[in-house]
Amino acid sequence: MRRAPPQRAQACTRRLRHCGSMTAEPRRLTRAQQRVATRTAILDATGEVLVADGYAELTTRRVAELAGVAQSTLMHHFPTREALLVETVSHLAMRLADEAIDALDLVALREPAQRETVLDQAWAQFTSPVAIAAAQLWAAAWAEPQLAAALHELEQRLGGLIFGTAATLFPDISDDPRFRPSIDAAVSLIRGLVMAIPVSGAAEIDARWAAMKPVLADVAGALLDG
Amino acid sequence: MRRAPPQRAQACTRRLRHCGSMTAEPRRLTRAQQRVATRTAILDATGEVLVADGYAELTTRRVAELAGVAQSTLMHHFPTREALLVETVSHLAMRLADEAIDALDLVALREPAQRETVLDQAWAQFTSPVAIAAAQLWAAAWAEPQLAAALHELEQRLGGLIFGTAATLFPDISDDPRFRPSIDAAVSLIRGLVMAIPVSGAAEIDARWAAMKPVLADVAGALLDG
Repeated sequence: MRRAPPQRAQACTRRLRHCGSMTAEPRRLTRAQQRVATRTAILDATGEVLVADGYAELTTRRVAELAGVAQSTLMHHFPTREALLVETVSHLAMRLADEAIDALDLVALREPAQRETVLDQAWAQFTSPVAIAAAQLWAAAWAEPQLAAALHELEQRLGGLIFGTAATLFPDISDDPRFRPSIDAAVSLIRGLVMAIPVSGAAEIDARWAAMKPVLADVAGALLDG
Repeated sequence: MRRAPPQRAQACTRRLRHCGSMTAEPRRLTRAQQRVATRTAILDATGEVLVADGYAELTTRRVAELAGVAQSTLMHHFPTREALLVETVSHLAMRLADEAIDALDLVALREPAQRETVLDQAWAQFTSPVAIAAAQLWAAAWAEPQLAAALHELEQRLGGLIFGTAATLFPDISDDPRFRPSIDAAVSLIRGLVMAIPVSGAAEIDARWAAMKPVLADVAGALLDG
């Protein structure tokens, strides 16, 4: 799902010391640029540790190692593990939203034959490694109020983005009182399935999603066709 | 949602030492009965600590205190916190299933005017204090493989119970290929909403549920009316 160029750019910012040798014209970064690059490298590394090791195993030491920065540098940018996670939430969500806008062809929902394909595109977004990392933060919010508050703010921003995009793409039905609740129901359904992945395993959840897809395509059709 | 008599009985088993004075004819328990009573008291207390303090704050010390047993007794029955939680999962799920069978009038789904009422009954079940305690275990399963395995076994048992009950109540549509996926979708949707409670707060989630309800009633109607 990730597009190749941003990924390469991230790999580069992540290992700043080696960057010069990889580009044709090595150049000095300003202090402000260096600061942004270091923060980005740390947040990217946090995302990667979340994906690879899971939330419970995430330590600032492991993140610093992967980001190629000293642990004191990490602590300077993010004084606590919680501060790091809260910032990572925003960082991951922006990336997810970015990827989703690229990957989802929502307008194709108007074509009955295309509906299941679009649903699968959405499913792929919500089960990408980055999305699974985000889901773990969601689960951890039960025990961490500061994380829950950060996620709430984000949830509202993302909700606004989702409903706004949908209303632009489907102006003819965006006034239907079922429009917003239907989108919310779809997102909640997918989130409920994703949250069951550690319990049921990805293969079983994929199979259950596949079985539901035709039902959901019908429901989407009923709304779209009036 | 809890029925009063079982709750009183639990309070009694929980504080065994005080039980004699509350009943008309105090009697000695056999060793086996004592054992079961103590285990039940510990599991009930674990459920209560989960409800009151949350998963992260749950300690065996707090549980032993509330159950009115020595911590060594608790350790004898459940050697580790994980063993205690795994057993509590089954214990809570049995209670939830029991309560749901009492509280849900699924057959009323056939009456268009009753559909939203039945959906609200289901919502009340999934958001009861015991259900919220269970949801926390679900969230914790991301980080605890032994807990995830116990929940998987339980999920399969509960799934069998749900689909079996539904097939008995709606024999005319239980062969419809949309039948099982629709139930699975409804349960997943509710779980997705419940999992967002720590992030969005119970009031906001209740409001979102209320907005979705008419849409879900329509979808249920389309399946039930063919």
